Amino acid sequence: MSSPVLVEATRGGRVESRHRGSVAIVDGDGARVFALGAVSDPVFPRSACKAMQALPLVESGAADAYGFGDAELALACASHNGEPEHVALAGRMLQVAGLQAEALECGAHWSFDQPTLIGQARSLDRPTALHNNCSGKHAGFLCAACHSGMEPRGYVAYGHPLQAEIRSAMEDLTGTLIDADRCGIDGCSIPTYAVPLDRLAHGFARMATGIGLGRLRAEASRRLIAACMAEPFYVAGTKRACTTLMRLAPGRIFVKTGAEGVFCAAIPEKGLGIALKCEDGATRAAEAMVAAVLARCLRDDPALEAALLAEANRTMRNWNGTAVGEIRVSDALTQA
Amino acid sequence: MSSPVLVEATRGGRVESRHRGSVAIVDGDGARVFALGAVSDPVFPRSACKAMQALPLVESGAADAYGFGDAELALACASHNGEPEHVALAGRMLQVAGLQAEALECGAHWSFDQPTLIGQARSLDRPTALHNNCSGKHAGFLCAACHSGMEPRGYVAYGHPLQAEIRSAMEDLTGTLIDADRCGIDGCSIPTYAVPLDRLAHGFARMATGIGLGRLRAEASRRLIAACMAEPFYVAGTKRACTTLMRLAPGRIFVKTGAEGVFCAAIPEKGLGIALKCEDGATRAAEAMVAAVLARCLRDDPALEAALLAEANRTMRNWNGTAVGEIRVSDALTQA
Repeated sequence: MSSPVLVEATRGGRVESRHRGSVAIVDGDGARVFALGAVSDPVFPRSACKAMQALPLVESGAADAYGFGDAELALACASHNGEPEHVALAGRMLQVAGLQAEALECGAHWSFDQPTLIGQARSLDRPTALHNNCSGKHAGFLCAACHSGMEPRGYVAYGHPLQAEIRSAMEDLTGTLIDADRCGIDGCSIPTYAVPLDRLAHGFARMATGIGLGRLRAEASRRLIAACMAEPFYVAGTKRACTTLMRLAPGRIFVKTGAEGVFCAAIPEKGLGIALKCEDGATRAAEAMVAAVLARCLRDDPALEAALLAEANRTMRNWNGTAVGEIRVSDALTQA
Repeated sequence: MSSPVLVEATRGGRVESRHRGSVAIVDGDGARVFALGAVSDPVFPRSACKAMQALPLVESGAADAYGFGDAELALACASHNGEPEHVALAGRMLQVAGLQAEALECGAHWSFDQPTLIGQARSLDRPTALHNNCSGKHAGFLCAACHSGMEPRGYVAYGHPLQAEIRSAMEDLTGTLIDADRCGIDGCSIPTYAVPLDRLAHGFARMATGIGLGRLRAEASRRLIAACMAEPFYVAGTKRACTTLMRLAPGRIFVKTGAEGVFCAAIPEKGLGIALKCEDGATRAAEAMVAAVLARCLRDDPALEAALLAEANRTMRNWNGTAVGEIRVSDALTQA
């Protein structure tokens, strides 16, 4: 099934570029509340499912044993900017487990955030694995493995017992088979599994509601979602969409992006999970889509709806600050 | 008319993201040699038509009066990285016309190229207008205006006589009306005009062949195209697609990108002009498309065809250098 145009970029009053996408909103029982496009097609959630991947950290008791609070759990679910606070906290998480940065197997990269990159360029010869946007997730993996008595080395491999635990949790949450046939390798070297978009949304509805989950998993899920909502800076960083959107309604919206135009989200008070994918992988479009979808779910709070729509539809300015066009979402996302 | 999928990004053997696009290949007489997608739809060429916008610089006699060679003319047609050589040459172009960097009206930005940005962050407090990727084009505009006795201030405005000259040249080359109804404002504050993709391709076929142009314009066009092919570093920079593709076949391929997934190109030996637009504006996809289209036009040189296809289809690696997927072009671009 093909995907409809959901976001347009305009210039001089004309549409300059178009982004297609698919969106699924699902409740805790698995019922589709809203669907647009190819919602049964498998999609790699990439970093959008980091909260699912962090479940062993909590369920194993590692998070409690190491004294992790909301900030550490949020960072374990994060794709962060590599700002100094992110880098320092990832280092501290490793330290309490008796590990060094060298244990991280995610690889190193400069920040994707321009102001952070400029700061890094002025203070570092080169970035380390602690600066990788996934360093918090990897620190969480290492803490879970160490606390559970697993050999930490090779924790990124498909065959490592930690990755097997993650597969099991994802199968439980999404109700789909998670195996080698659905596996790709992510940017930070861990396995990523293609899951139908509506099953991914169902998984996040379950994490937010606990419906159909065992007590331990329901509690761990709610704790991770709550930690991200309580510490949105540690999920992404300055001026990032996940951080901005969660700050608009503290404790009411969970939202997490993934590479190639994916977003997963949950609205606990509505019992809803959301998953969306921009066909072409564009971040600018996926950000507009998720803001518009959150707005449609929260129409009963007109001030919040307006604030979310202001994130979805925005003016583009050039280097001189002149308004040159708009990013705008289609009626299909906002209406009926 | 809708645009077909022309480029796919894969991961773990599955298609992860899809890019649609339109492509027109036209000869000097205006005949369509190849067309895919919505080639009659108007598209903002953005920076892809900088060689057209540089015509007044040559036609006015300014380029000769100021002693400009291939490097200066290439920079006048460039979207450069802001590498030290680009910045220095833009400064020298202004200097010979008796102007300072403050005359530039393009605005300032840090380099889009990560290694260049890191170097800039370590050596500069902040970038100036000379570092703007369009500084060479703007230096060329100022030189043309000064040599022609025009007031240089306000040269970016629709109503400035230099912009009127550019409109006239673009109408002549593309055979389409270029006016305020088709006007948007570009990132560097100059007007950009929406032109049907096939007419844009025709314009570049005419620039490469001179067919249907007056003697002065035909000569200026060929000189600008030849300058870009002779100095590809000054058209873009280190590891940039325009530079890489032109270096694969020195003097035989002209190629220039524009924002939002546009490419214009010409193959003088074949008398062909090319214009393409990625529907979603993605650079990675537009780069693959133009390499594949150039390859199909140059099949009679199998080594060059293979080198171009190696740019079109490429392996994506993660931060650890592991191959995780591919960017690959569709059969529609390469076959029949």
